Amino acid sequence: MSGPSARLARFLAGSRWEEIPASLRQEGRRAILNIIGCMLGGRRERSIQLLESAFPATSLANAAVVHAAAANALDFDDTHLPTVIHPSAPVAGALFALMNERKLTGAQFLHAFILGVEAACRVGNAVSPGHYEHGWHITGTCGVFGAAAAAGKALELNESQFLHALGIAATQAAGLVEMLGSMARVLNTGFAARNGLAAALLAAQGFEAVEQPLEGERGFANVFGGSRKVAALIQGLGEEWALREVAYKPYPCGMVLHALIDACLPLRKVESYPQSVEIRLHPLAVERGDRVEPRNGLEARLSAQHCAAVALVDGAAGLAQFTDDAVSRPALALVRSRVKLVADGSLDKAAAIVTVDGRAVRAEARQSMTGAELEAKFRALAGPRAEELLAVVSSLESAGELSLTL
Amino acid sequence: MSGPSARLARFLAGSRWEEIPASLRQEGRRAILNIIGCMLGGRRERSIQLLESAFPATSLANAAVVHAAAANALDFDDTHLPTVIHPSAPVAGALFALMNERKLTGAQFLHAFILGVEAACRVGNAVSPGHYEHGWHITGTCGVFGAAAAAGKALELNESQFLHALGIAATQAAGLVEMLGSMARVLNTGFAARNGLAAALLAAQGFEAVEQPLEGERGFANVFGGSRKVAALIQGLGEEWALREVAYKPYPCGMVLHALIDACLPLRKVESYPQSVEIRLHPLAVERGDRVEPRNGLEARLSAQHCAAVALVDGAAGLAQFTDDAVSRPALALVRSRVKLVADGSLDKAAAIVTVDGRAVRAEARQSMTGAELEAKFRALAGPRAEELLAVVSSLESAGELSLTL
Repeated sequence: MSGPSARLARFLAGSRWEEIPASLRQEGRRAILNIIGCMLGGRRERSIQLLESAFPATSLANAAVVHAAAANALDFDDTHLPTVIHPSAPVAGALFALMNERKLTGAQFLHAFILGVEAACRVGNAVSPGHYEHGWHITGTCGVFGAAAAAGKALELNESQFLHALGIAATQAAGLVEMLGSMARVLNTGFAARNGLAAALLAAQGFEAVEQPLEGERGFANVFGGSRKVAALIQGLGEEWALREVAYKPYPCGMVLHALIDACLPLRKVESYPQSVEIRLHPLAVERGDRVEPRNGLEARLSAQHCAAVALVDGAAGLAQFTDDAVSRPALALVRSRVKLVADGSLDKAAAIVTVDGRAVRAEARQSMTGAELEAKFRALAGPRAEELLAVVSSLESAGELSLTL
Repeated sequence: MSGPSARLARFLAGSRWEEIPASLRQEGRRAILNIIGCMLGGRRERSIQLLESAFPATSLANAAVVHAAAANALDFDDTHLPTVIHPSAPVAGALFALMNERKLTGAQFLHAFILGVEAACRVGNAVSPGHYEHGWHITGTCGVFGAAAAAGKALELNESQFLHALGIAATQAAGLVEMLGSMARVLNTGFAARNGLAAALLAAQGFEAVEQPLEGERGFANVFGGSRKVAALIQGLGEEWALREVAYKPYPCGMVLHALIDACLPLRKVESYPQSVEIRLHPLAVERGDRVEPRNGLEARLSAQHCAAVALVDGAAGLAQFTDDAVSRPALALVRSRVKLVADGSLDKAAAIVTVDGRAVRAEARQSMTGAELEAKFRALAGPRAEELLAVVSSLESAGELSLTL
């Protein structure tokens, strides 16, 4: 066995906890804290409540579906910037389903999580750019490999079993971009978790796939298309880590709208509403975000005008600002109507220049969040369970067997 | 709603049993008999035994996986000739899982089955040619729609729910040709059944997808590629039926090798082995089937030499002729070594001219099997349960609530 799939499998099987750098372990804990918050917050969405009744937690498979779908439901989970995969949802979804049954220690959980994110993002790199743009919901199509790798590590698969797990994942890879904006979006994430978990469980029992699932003539990279850079599967394995390129969202809305919120916040006037608001964005951000009258909370998350209005009126852009009720608040409608969007090709895709009543502020996209910001976000999402879970995650590395109900 | 997806949904919701022609009902019973036989026979395969332990029949979803995978395991199930979809396995897999819980009558079962085959094959027509050739295992990618349509009819979905079921199916469509020749092939069929069933169950509960799952810009046809003839989804709906283009396999081996078996059978000499065997086939059939020393039963199913040998030595090409043991029988190895394959571009892909010791026979592929042949095949596959199940299927239309354990 010497192809890229086999070499990735060998890396996953051979990876040892002691070799994971301390800074990467810390990033893993941050990602896990963030995704647990998203999971708990996402449970309140209608799509997830429907899923919970269709997939009751009577099996590991169903638990994986619901955990991962919930983690992705608010569009508030992490993003691997080079590929736009949301890796933590499918990876953590599979692991949380498996955790109690397998009696994982905190270190085993964190190790499996880090490797799962790595596998998902490496498969994404191997088909990016081109794959997402073609219409594949990359969190689904690549997330399944992440779930398989994480669950495989938790199950202690050997090299050959890992290769078969990657193959069984490849032949289940699925998810259409067409579903974004509908309830069905979360299915892509939920099923990626379940299907990757199944791939690992089947491989552990001796179920076999093929030698070259990713690079074979009719394998994942050739059939799903995109850049077909299979070398990206193995380049710098163990030295370059995908988790270092993962960003957390401070606001539950489209990434290209984050900078304008950052620019609006210092321009907020407590005593009055702004008269004129000009927002300069990259043309692509204008194309994606020009929605002066969003119809509901889902559309508000993709509305530049709404994002500006909540920052300028409420001084906040949290979950409360993106509900159906928030959309219909008269003050927000008024300020939205005063926003003028300007496409400016000289700006970076994620930057913004905002001018409110003559005062201008420029903001660039931030790559991530500070520890304090992440913790505040977590508290807002996790509600009454925040303290208990913060303690679990902060001592994850030294924890013995985890016993956690989410 | 007026796109092809919506019109297909309307057809499925509106279809009435009384409108199904008698000849089509009869073909439906034949297809069901054939697939039950394949299901029972397939259970003995190692891949299916592994699946049964990973997916115990504790849920409808797991039952669908195992039923459909087993039905496809021997490569002995039916084929929709225009697309090479094996439609009955995913469709019947979903329905057998749902049948007892929903207390379906025989007529409801048969009606849902016919519509399921119709939906799978129409989606296949909409992307053929090109889709399978690109590397999509079409029984998986299109079978999921068949399972969704069949389960949807059994659940009595309305038009809007059917549309969402098609969407939830579309975003789960999966399966790589790369897996053919490995255990993982049957997963594509098994998961198509389970995922289509889930699509129908979710839609029945109000879960929503999108308006144009098949024809949308990032919908199934554009993203999965192939011919993109979405008009084929609805052309002649209710008048032209896919089930009329479905063929049953008399021999558990590649379809392009069937004619040579038919030609060899009358040339068999009971008292001696043939000295010289020449087989003329279409060049594509030679390319696919030139295996003078197959390593196991799986490869024997794709060996023209082995097919000729079993017909000339045993006068049969049944399950017993394609086992690992059969491959190593000295008489078969001897005759295989005496076979000369000749590529002949003047022949149809499915035809053969065989010359044994100077006597020549020409055979064309048969489109299907007679009732007596199907019944004999069924008895061989179903073993001790053959009589009981033959009676159930022959009186399916008039049966009340079905209660059947497979």
